[in-house]
Amino acid sequence: MKLYSWEFAPNPRRVRIYLAEKGLTVPVEDVGVPGKPILNPDFLKKFPHRRVPLLELDDGTCIGEAMAICRYFEALHPEPPLLGRTPKEAALVDMWERLAEWEGMHAVSEYFRNAKRSFAGRALAGAAAPIEQIPALTERGRHRVASFYEKFEFHMKGREFVAGDAFSVADITTLCAVDFAETCGLGIPAGCTEMIRWHAAISARPSAGA
Amino acid sequence: MKLYSWEFAPNPRRVRIYLAEKGLTVPVEDVGVPGKPILNPDFLKKFPHRRVPLLELDDGTCIGEAMAICRYFEALHPEPPLLGRTPKEAALVDMWERLAEWEGMHAVSEYFRNAKRSFAGRALAGAAAPIEQIPALTERGRHRVASFYEKFEFHMKGREFVAGDAFSVADITTLCAVDFAETCGLGIPAGCTEMIRWHAAISARPSAGA
Repeated sequence: MKLYSWEFAPNPRRVRIYLAEKGLTVPVEDVGVPGKPILNPDFLKKFPHRRVPLLELDDGTCIGEAMAICRYFEALHPEPPLLGRTPKEAALVDMWERLAEWEGMHAVSEYFRNAKRSFAGRALAGAAAPIEQIPALTERGRHRVASFYEKFEFHMKGREFVAGDAFSVADITTLCAVDFAETCGLGIPAGCTEMIRWHAAISARPSAGA
Repeated sequence: MKLYSWEFAPNPRRVRIYLAEKGLTVPVEDVGVPGKPILNPDFLKKFPHRRVPLLELDDGTCIGEAMAICRYFEALHPEPPLLGRTPKEAALVDMWERLAEWEGMHAVSEYFRNAKRSFAGRALAGAAAPIEQIPALTERGRHRVASFYEKFEFHMKGREFVAGDAFSVADITTLCAVDFAETCGLGIPAGCTEMIRWHAAISARPSAGA
């Protein structure tokens, strides 16, 4: 078994944090090209999804998508539960994880990949053919990130965790989205005091360093 | 318990097909405004996600996101399994379902919401503030839909179902994405014979009418 990762990318970090919270160790291969913001061409050729993280099982099966990988490990190692304990909690974790991905992660990515000159022609992750940058999407991405903070700030009032009353993958994806935003100069606005509190607590967990 | 749906939208259909395959009946309220391509303002005011499908439980808990709703029902009614039988199969179903959503459903949506005049100012589902249409995204959306067909055509060679050897939510999301694309004039290209075969078989299931 091997996890293909890329040190600087936000999505493989979702899996690395998950594994750290579980206390699981999996061999990791970094497939970034040192000093360049691109993935190794051999990796891209081998795997049609052209994205990290990717988990390769011993039988050659490749599982892409961060949450699909976490779900695989969750089935094999249920404790501590990071995908919800009851049907209702599992549904809420799934919902908030997807909202954090779509309204957070994808929003930051829209800003980042359309604004950053080094991503010219690669405005969408995983695309095989060139995807040109669209200047209007930097502004839309910035706007979407602001909406993400606004929604999550409202939601986090009085809450310790993003979904339910325990740490879950919903916290992991939200953390990775916020930290990705921060590296783009789109950190949590000063007025979002609930999000700042939550972010400090989650960042203090040892897994955040993964 | 009540499922908020909208007859013409592709995402609530994912849940309706899922329930039909399970043989489950849930009270459904259609929250579209008759004759207009908008959701009822009362619904939008009540639910901050501003999107269908949404499942309201008897205790008032609201679960949004089609797959989070399906996961809730799957935990309560495991048979027949539509989210995978083994850890590996569950991971592959999750992966392909997410790929069908991101590379299929979101691509069609990008085309549709940026091209259709009646969606001016609503270029992203669920946004509370206006999101203006970006003309370049109609072309990008069309391009992404073509890439989606290309990837899934390659993947479906010799396969009866999108993930594993049984019908799953990966088939449901792919079907809803393809049928949504068809209503936009972006149906399966004639050369994609594997996809055409798969689509005919899945469309022949009684659940496809849901």
